[in-house]
Amino acid sequence: MKKASIVSIGNELLNGQTVNTNTTYLSSELLSNGIPVVSSYTISDDVDAIVRVFNLAVADADIVLVTGGLGPTDDDLTRQAFAGYLGTELQLQAELLDRLENFFKKRNLRMPDKNKIQAYIPAGAKPIENSLGTAPGIMAEVNPVRKLEWGPKGRSFLSNGVKGKLIFALPGVPSEMKRMFAESVLSELQRFTGGQAVVVRKLRCFGAGESTIAEMLGPACRRGRNPLVNCTVESGIITLHIIASSRDKDAAREMAKKEEKTIRNMLGDLVYGAAEQRLADVVGEKLAQQGKTIAVAESCTGGTVARLLTDIPGASKYFTHGWITYSNAAKTGELGVAADLIDKYGAVSEQVAEAMAQGARKKARTDFAIGITGIAGPDGGTEQKPVGLVYISVDSDNGCDTKRCLFSHDRRSIRLRAAQTALNMLRLKLNI
Amino acid sequence: MKKASIVSIGNELLNGQTVNTNTTYLSSELLSNGIPVVSSYTISDDVDAIVRVFNLAVADADIVLVTGGLGPTDDDLTRQAFAGYLGTELQLQAELLDRLENFFKKRNLRMPDKNKIQAYIPAGAKPIENSLGTAPGIMAEVNPVRKLEWGPKGRSFLSNGVKGKLIFALPGVPSEMKRMFAESVLSELQRFTGGQAVVVRKLRCFGAGESTIAEMLGPACRRGRNPLVNCTVESGIITLHIIASSRDKDAAREMAKKEEKTIRNMLGDLVYGAAEQRLADVVGEKLAQQGKTIAVAESCTGGTVARLLTDIPGASKYFTHGWITYSNAAKTGELGVAADLIDKYGAVSEQVAEAMAQGARKKARTDFAIGITGIAGPDGGTEQKPVGLVYISVDSDNGCDTKRCLFSHDRRSIRLRAAQTALNMLRLKLNI
Repeated sequence: MKKASIVSIGNELLNGQTVNTNTTYLSSELLSNGIPVVSSYTISDDVDAIVRVFNLAVADADIVLVTGGLGPTDDDLTRQAFAGYLGTELQLQAELLDRLENFFKKRNLRMPDKNKIQAYIPAGAKPIENSLGTAPGIMAEVNPVRKLEWGPKGRSFLSNGVKGKLIFALPGVPSEMKRMFAESVLSELQRFTGGQAVVVRKLRCFGAGESTIAEMLGPACRRGRNPLVNCTVESGIITLHIIASSRDKDAAREMAKKEEKTIRNMLGDLVYGAAEQRLADVVGEKLAQQGKTIAVAESCTGGTVARLLTDIPGASKYFTHGWITYSNAAKTGELGVAADLIDKYGAVSEQVAEAMAQGARKKARTDFAIGITGIAGPDGGTEQKPVGLVYISVDSDNGCDTKRCLFSHDRRSIRLRAAQTALNMLRLKLNI
Repeated sequence: MKKASIVSIGNELLNGQTVNTNTTYLSSELLSNGIPVVSSYTISDDVDAIVRVFNLAVADADIVLVTGGLGPTDDDLTRQAFAGYLGTELQLQAELLDRLENFFKKRNLRMPDKNKIQAYIPAGAKPIENSLGTAPGIMAEVNPVRKLEWGPKGRSFLSNGVKGKLIFALPGVPSEMKRMFAESVLSELQRFTGGQAVVVRKLRCFGAGESTIAEMLGPACRRGRNPLVNCTVESGIITLHIIASSRDKDAAREMAKKEEKTIRNMLGDLVYGAAEQRLADVVGEKLAQQGKTIAVAESCTGGTVARLLTDIPGASKYFTHGWITYSNAAKTGELGVAADLIDKYGAVSEQVAEAMAQGARKKARTDFAIGITGIAGPDGGTEQKPVGLVYISVDSDNGCDTKRCLFSHDRRSIRLRAAQTALNMLRLKLNI
């Protein structure tokens, strides 16, 4: 199995300015393609340091992915270091210069002299097209044990058929890096790894913790299996990565599909979607398909549900009204929640959540309405009604369902989890 | 000047599961204390790989900060690798075992046998207390050129007064790592670096781009200056880090204070706050101080302004009502926006933004109200009214101010920037 190492270049990564998300992205993509990452190096914009780290990374792995340092400024030294590592010179590529000049011409800009350096790549290396920015990437195949054979004359380093290692240098700008990885690097990697086909399917789950889901899946999650099932968690959403590999693409696809079916059967309603879907994507899709509409009435979540719903382009098709009734007067005045209900049961109660949802649905004349009231903290909790207590109601023609939840952690998590739970309740109602 | 290197240990950092924020945090903290980070290594849970990287990091720098791999499971191998690197054995520390047993006793739990390993540290190293979890940290002073002198007998590696290098190993859990860095590591570092006092003040700015602010500051931003002024950007908020260093703490404090005053004079209203303040913190503070209230009426931002305001604990003191009037019917029905205004000028217009703010203030009976209408995209734009066009109104007893904005990038950025701009307009109104 081929292994990879990642090299990140840039002072901004070593002074706390920038979180290195490129490494996370590349690690995940490489693993999804059956290539585990064994090490990762971050180094400042310094030629000697970069060359040294190139040597370390090539010693660790078969594939080295480098990001950063390909810009036009004096700080950007990856190009020079790459040539230094290869023992060759930078050469001007007429075709790259043309492309650069066109990039600026199209935008009615004069190309700054500084940018000309971006048309240079090490002799014998190949450029990788950048369709979003000015910095082309660079790739080279090298054979560390035959280093003396490398020539500055632009011919392939390994013309004699000896299989070497691959180095790719990409810009540090995440959007450019990701696009180039998908458009150019991935196919090179697939060729390099001998055409082992890897198919990844992602399933998104909500409604149970990671350990519960792992328990339900049992041996399906075992390491070293094929298909492999990996589990990651982010903001309450659990993602299962089904990774199937085979010599044959169709066979891998079939394996992944079969595994997905098995897992869906095991987890049932806990699986809400696939690929990059958020809860609001799925809820929005269902509402649009069924021609239904939704309104929200939020207290403790303060607009989080509305924001999640309207994050989705085209949400105006099904989302019309939202209220953030933070004060009791707002609950009474805007949603018609009876004042004596608040007096009797308190603003944080099943009864008030219900009245909020019902009031919102009546006023907005929607098919569904969500009502949420709770205590997001850090203050305002009591023994009977602690911080994290949230009542969530979903009202529809079929009546009003209310859930009492007790969320933990901080204000931020409590609010987000309450909003996600509301969307999930709506999703389950829409399934019927 | 002493330099640092950071080593991150853990499979989860190399398979795309976890973004490495520890390195960002430590880099920033170290720089704030006058210690630049020159390299950073990420490696899987493997003893040989960890020892190899310890060697690289010690070669790079005077101070090595290691995170991760101190847990109780078989995957956690930093302890063993640390001993291996030092050429010593792991030794049971009675005091650490006591603390561990107490940790579980206090929580009425039986200590799993697995945890006992956490009471072992390499002979001659010192434990670092962990007040939040079970994993103590480990520190050792080493002298790479005198490696043969290290003994397994628990005496200091450098009893003869030769100044060596410092290695700190901390848990990977961010909350524990941060607490231990602040409580224990920082003072060791300050002693080690010869007591150079470093004072950092942060100023938060909104309302102009990074390059504009850099231009306004001119030579104040020059590299190598003392105080040094560093500029970072996140989600439209620009943070200026003023880093003053001196042999004397009071002198450094004075320098930073003076520089802050100079910068505040240069930037005026662009500086909205200090330290970790968000726009909503400052706006909320001012509203509470002045005993004023606020309501919001949002269309394209879909609840983002309300959410930002209610992210702040205690927001109920000043925030009472919010409307998300996504449909025209909601704007008319809930806020009393005249239908012919929408017909004549369109839902995205100065007139409608004003009517939304005025309608919200009237209904909620607040001192201020915000009205926002715009086109968040990606669809719905026209030549006259392109994606990114947003009208923002702030209504008060002194009349209604409206701003026409054209934001760029994607739906997410347009919505966030519009919401921040609204809060900033309110802030400037509250300054008067």
